[in-house]
Amino acid sequence: MENSLVMAGVGENAHKRETICILGTGDFGRSLGMRMLKSGYPVVFGSRYPKDSTLLPSGAQVFHHADALKKSKIIFLAVHRENYDFVPALSDLLDGKVLVDVSNNLRMNQYPESNAQYLSQLVPKANVVKGFNTVSAWALQSGNLDASSQVFVCGDDNKSKQLVMDVARSIGLTPLDQGSLLAAEELENYPLQLFPMWRLPLTIAAGLTVFFFLYCVVIDVIYPYVEKNSDVSYRLAISVPNRIFPNVSLILLGLVYLPGVIAAFIQLYRGTKYKRFPDWLDRWMLCRKQLGLVALAYAFLHVLYTFIIPTRFSVRWRWMHSIIEESKENKTMELNKLKSWRVDLYFALGMLGFGLYVLLGITSLPSVSNVVNWREFRFVQSKLGHVTLLLCTAHAAVFGWDRFLESKWYKWGLPQAYMLGMVIPCIVLVLKLILITPCVDRMITRIRQGWEIKPKNKEAPVCINNASLI
Amino acid sequence: MENSLVMAGVGENAHKRETICILGTGDFGRSLGMRMLKSGYPVVFGSRYPKDSTLLPSGAQVFHHADALKKSKIIFLAVHRENYDFVPALSDLLDGKVLVDVSNNLRMNQYPESNAQYLSQLVPKANVVKGFNTVSAWALQSGNLDASSQVFVCGDDNKSKQLVMDVARSIGLTPLDQGSLLAAEELENYPLQLFPMWRLPLTIAAGLTVFFFLYCVVIDVIYPYVEKNSDVSYRLAISVPNRIFPNVSLILLGLVYLPGVIAAFIQLYRGTKYKRFPDWLDRWMLCRKQLGLVALAYAFLHVLYTFIIPTRFSVRWRWMHSIIEESKENKTMELNKLKSWRVDLYFALGMLGFGLYVLLGITSLPSVSNVVNWREFRFVQSKLGHVTLLLCTAHAAVFGWDRFLESKWYKWGLPQAYMLGMVIPCIVLVLKLILITPCVDRMITRIRQGWEIKPKNKEAPVCINNASLI
Amino acid sequence: MENSLVMAGVGENAHKRETICILGTGDFGRSLGMRMLKSGYPVVFGSRYPKDSTLLPSGAQVFHHADALKKSKIIFLAVHRENYDFVPALSDLLDGKVLVDVSNNLRMNQYPESNAQYLSQLVPKANVVKGFNTVSAWALQSGNLDASSQVFVCGDDNKSKQLVMDVARSIGLTPLDQGSLLAAEELENYPLQLFPMWRLPLTIAAGLTVFFFLYCVVIDVIYPYVEKNSDVSYRLAISVPNRIFPNVSLILLGLVYLPGVIAAFIQLYRGTKYKRFPDWLDRWMLCRKQLGLVALAYAFLHVLYTFIIPTRFSVRWRWMHSIIEESKENKTMELNKLKSWRVDLYFALGMLGFGLYVLLGITSLPSVSNVVNWREFRFVQSKLGHVTLLLCTAHAAVFGWDRFLESKWYKWGLPQAYMLGMVIPCIVLVLKLILITPCVDRMITRIRQGWEIKPKNKEAPVCINNASLI
Repeated sequence: MENSLVMAGVGENAHKRETICILGTGDFGRSLGMRMLKSGYPVVFGSRYPKDSTLLPSGAQVFHHADALKKSKIIFLAVHRENYDFVPALSDLLDGKVLVDVSNNLRMNQYPESNAQYLSQLVPKANVVKGFNTVSAWALQSGNLDASSQVFVCGDDNKSKQLVMDVARSIGLTPLDQGSLLAAEELENYPLQLFPMWRLPLTIAAGLTVFFFLYCVVIDVIYPYVEKNSDVSYRLAISVPNRIFPNVSLILLGLVYLPGVIAAFIQLYRGTKYKRFPDWLDRWMLCRKQLGLVALAYAFLHVLYTFIIPTRFSVRWRWMHSIIEESKENKTMELNKLKSWRVDLYFALGMLGFGLYVLLGITSLPSVSNVVNWREFRFVQSKLGHVTLLLCTAHAAVFGWDRFLESKWYKWGLPQAYMLGMVIPCIVLVLKLILITPCVDRMITRIRQGWEIKPKNKEAPVCINNASLI
Repeated sequence: MENSLVMAGVGENAHKRETICILGTGDFGRSLGMRMLKSGYPVVFGSRYPKDSTLLPSGAQVFHHADALKKSKIIFLAVHRENYDFVPALSDLLDGKVLVDVSNNLRMNQYPESNAQYLSQLVPKANVVKGFNTVSAWALQSGNLDASSQVFVCGDDNKSKQLVMDVARSIGLTPLDQGSLLAAEELENYPLQLFPMWRLPLTIAAGLTVFFFLYCVVIDVIYPYVEKNSDVSYRLAISVPNRIFPNVSLILLGLVYLPGVIAAFIQLYRGTKYKRFPDWLDRWMLCRKQLGLVALAYAFLHVLYTFIIPTRFSVRWRWMHSIIEESKENKTMELNKLKSWRVDLYFALGMLGFGLYVLLGITSLPSVSNVVNWREFRFVQSKLGHVTLLLCTAHAAVFGWDRFLESKWYKWGLPQAYMLGMVIPCIVLVLKLILITPCVDRMITRIRQGWEIKPKNKEAPVCINNASLI
Repeated sequence: MENSLVMAGVGENAHKRETICILGTGDFGRSLGMRMLKSGYPVVFGSRYPKDSTLLPSGAQVFHHADALKKSKIIFLAVHRENYDFVPALSDLLDGKVLVDVSNNLRMNQYPESNAQYLSQLVPKANVVKGFNTVSAWALQSGNLDASSQVFVCGDDNKSKQLVMDVARSIGLTPLDQGSLLAAEELENYPLQLFPMWRLPLTIAAGLTVFFFLYCVVIDVIYPYVEKNSDVSYRLAISVPNRIFPNVSLILLGLVYLPGVIAAFIQLYRGTKYKRFPDWLDRWMLCRKQLGLVALAYAFLHVLYTFIIPTRFSVRWRWMHSIIEESKENKTMELNKLKSWRVDLYFALGMLGFGLYVLLGITSLPSVSNVVNWREFRFVQSKLGHVTLLLCTAHAAVFGWDRFLESKWYKWGLPQAYMLGMVIPCIVLVLKLILITPCVDRMITRIRQGWEIKPKNKEAPVCINNASLI
């Protein structure tokens, strides 16, 4: 840092900003230029028809491609791949210079090789760096950077890459080195991605939603219609969804904690942590956060759908109806205290569970998880997470109460939705209970600290001394 | 980065931290000094009365101004502008040194020129850099940096600016280069700003709130009083606000998406995207996020005010009253199934809409929008946003149902509030529907990819080749 | 930054990444190696039994400790402190090299000196740097850095520290210089911390919760049982908690703003701001954010517990009961308009208060508070905060109404819970009211701008000129 003072003697103008050349006067090129000008970089644009180039940021100069190139050591190529044809002719002028490919494609893996690698073949003398393609023209212009300010950069020449990363940093972006130009393909695919980590959780949630929808329609709408000829199709709007939401939410929450207990049992069984988990388990563990957030969304809808109940017309009608019936009978009623307890208890459990649910959601916000240390993060996400699961499962159990004993609740022999919803959470809780019994817990703790059960067969001799390593 | 090793030969102590001099022992100066000491910088304070300076962080030395100056190449001037008078006398000692102006004013544009420019005139030999004025003494002291950790820096000498930015980085702040000293005025105004981007959305929201308040008071409170002599003034607390909130929220949400469709139609009409939008549209588009968040706040209040309905005393009284009336008539009631459907449906639509609303709000948190790519951000904010608008408008429409047909609902000939609230959202949805019809969509997509309709008149010849640029 | 070009002549391969050596092939070592390989660093592992080392990231080489050491200038020691015994033998090979201690302990202050200082004693010739211990192996592997990406670094040799910070930056982490190796102890304790800032607020909240629980059980459950022989134990699930939550929340919110007004009165009394506050006040002020967030959590539960009221079985039963009683009496009821107003008003106040509460919570998210300037942050947290306190206190006051006048509400002579809950908020509001009266406000503003009351006694002469400093 303080080099600068020492450096001063070496090159007097060491700190004057480099001129930046941008080939291409489209949206992205212009936005990039504007941003760089603001940060104190002299900017020259290269264009085929410099006289016709309009809307350029004030302060920038515009020349023919070749003339623009000569003025700068760092050249941004802000042109679609289909228009790279003019580049080879400039090959000599690009010799040894840094050529930044900022292009994006319209589809993933549109071409056999990445644009940056293709460019590198066109002008082998230039030091091609891929980068800035993940930043949008809008973000560069507006400057408030609502979307990501991360700039992924890759390239084969480290010096050039460093220069480009310095430029990114100077204009307020956060450069991240992604290695050699081989990574360009990944970088070009990145902005075309649409929530890849969310795909699996959302698919699971959608599948469960459809299943529970059909199941509840059968039990709650078709059954009364067939058996009692009563048309309760209006239940489709709120009653049925409000059975789907809690069950899917509970199952998803169970799925968040299931891989963890499975992993613990695998480690227990293997007697070591120094073996890779199966791939499916790794993938599952990496999408736990997304699973949990989808579960939270369902829980949120469940809460909304529950609070609206007393305002619903059909519910009010039913209450009114029962009150009038009751008043006709003209006898003194007694408050059923057990039922009061049960109903209040499952509401209380549900609301406390939801409170913790929301807390888990908040701590998974990047800016919050960024200010807690690893131990705190694990405390919230693991300890509090399991408590949340316990509360929510208890909420469902108290809701069900002894209904699972009475045959009248098994319509057409089918168990109620809440019973299906409790299967996975109960499995997780039982397994977790086993894991936290003192003797098992001691074992798993030792394994996680690196200790290993002496391998029974000598096929894979493992060095015991590793055990002492972090 | 790795320079450091290479540098080692040049100057043995290249990496020993520079001594920092701070002139001024007020809150800010002391806090800055404390922070720098913590990060390993030797710190000397300059004061007029060094013996009387109290509360200085331990480890710092304090001297007379001139003596302090001599010990450092980087001098922070932590003194109000009114007290710059002692600086010119130190002019020779400041020759070639970096002088950082951290001052703030009490009002925007308080002086004809910025403090930093004024300082630069007082000591032309010093390299004046403006910066650190956006950081608070409290943030520097507490270190947890609840408030912004961004340090905007500007200055005419790039080398000096770089040094100051390095210091900022070393003490855990995020420096952002803002260009030449001309930017100092903006930087000095920045900490005096009070939500400038929120002013327009909040003004619109306030205007709409007042309008709907008066409108609903007339319809819901004054009308029954005048026509039926019934005093329902208690409606002012919840019923009337709960008409204001949903309508203002819906209109604001419509206003979030209106500029987007207007822009698309302008592009369609012009046949090109290479023309600037009118200024008012640009400004409107830049405050869409704020508009949306205000709309979310109103929707949140609407949800709260709706869930409390069945607990309200007057509502319970009305239900009780109607039940007793009903029971007197002593006839069997039938559940109105259509009304059950209608009520449940508009609740369901409203709650799903609110769920998406909240999702939009969460993704607009800086730390969340920072980890999604541009495509994902647009998917959520545009696609899901329009779905939210559709759901909320449908919520209002099903709420209204066929009431717009019956004259009894037009009190004193006035339409109901929900009808007014639906106008803008419906316009947006109709325009959006036109835009997503295949043929129009194809056209707009081509235009946005850079394609242009051949200009009919030759007044403004546009270079077709631009079309291929990003 | 632009040095790089100038540097190019000095050392041709200045920008080729340094080889990194990692001693230890445990989880952390492997994860660190993987991450570094991804960022383009050549990585060699040192192990006692290089042939047995498994699971190493592909691309890395593994050697005996001594051989690995020779290949690199930066060595990461990823081994538990108990296994440092092999290090002294390598002393000569480590001469002048950078040795990064990444170790953590199992307990706080487990050893008399920090691991890094101990290591430094073992190999005095090496430049020991402490760092990376706050990053988890999981975060390094998954790369999405859900947990903190901050790397705290300390060390006695600035050059070495700088090199390590550069490495951290290159692999996408955010290094923060924490000073000399003395800070290592704090750094080693950091990952073992469990929400230290939350301890006090949570303790206060827990204490208040227990107190109000016992108090409400006495008043709401035991009293009716003893006096009226009525068993209302079901109230424990929802009714009693819903008395605890609002009162604890209100008291905590009062405690958020109490230190601020106390501080202002201390400044007024002393006539200067240039004196340190008592330690307890400083500590209190530093945990205001946490206090506020705990208060918000309680308020959130209060809202949930309130919205569920009309759905509760016992509540519905009571309503039903009262309706039937009413209908028997067979007389026309009149709506109590005052009560309608009162109930609606306290609901409205509560919900508006909660809305602002949530707003305060959102602005305290790090990523949100990071994009507002100091003035805006204070506006929200101070101005809006006091309005929130006012609304919530008014909510409680209107809820209580004139009940504090009637002796029947004092069961066994005890005041109701809401009265206890209002004491601290009312004190804060009254004190704040005094502070914002024009004359007091003018005084306090002047003091905060640095002005001082002339000291009456000459014991502690204070330099008036300081007043002009920031």
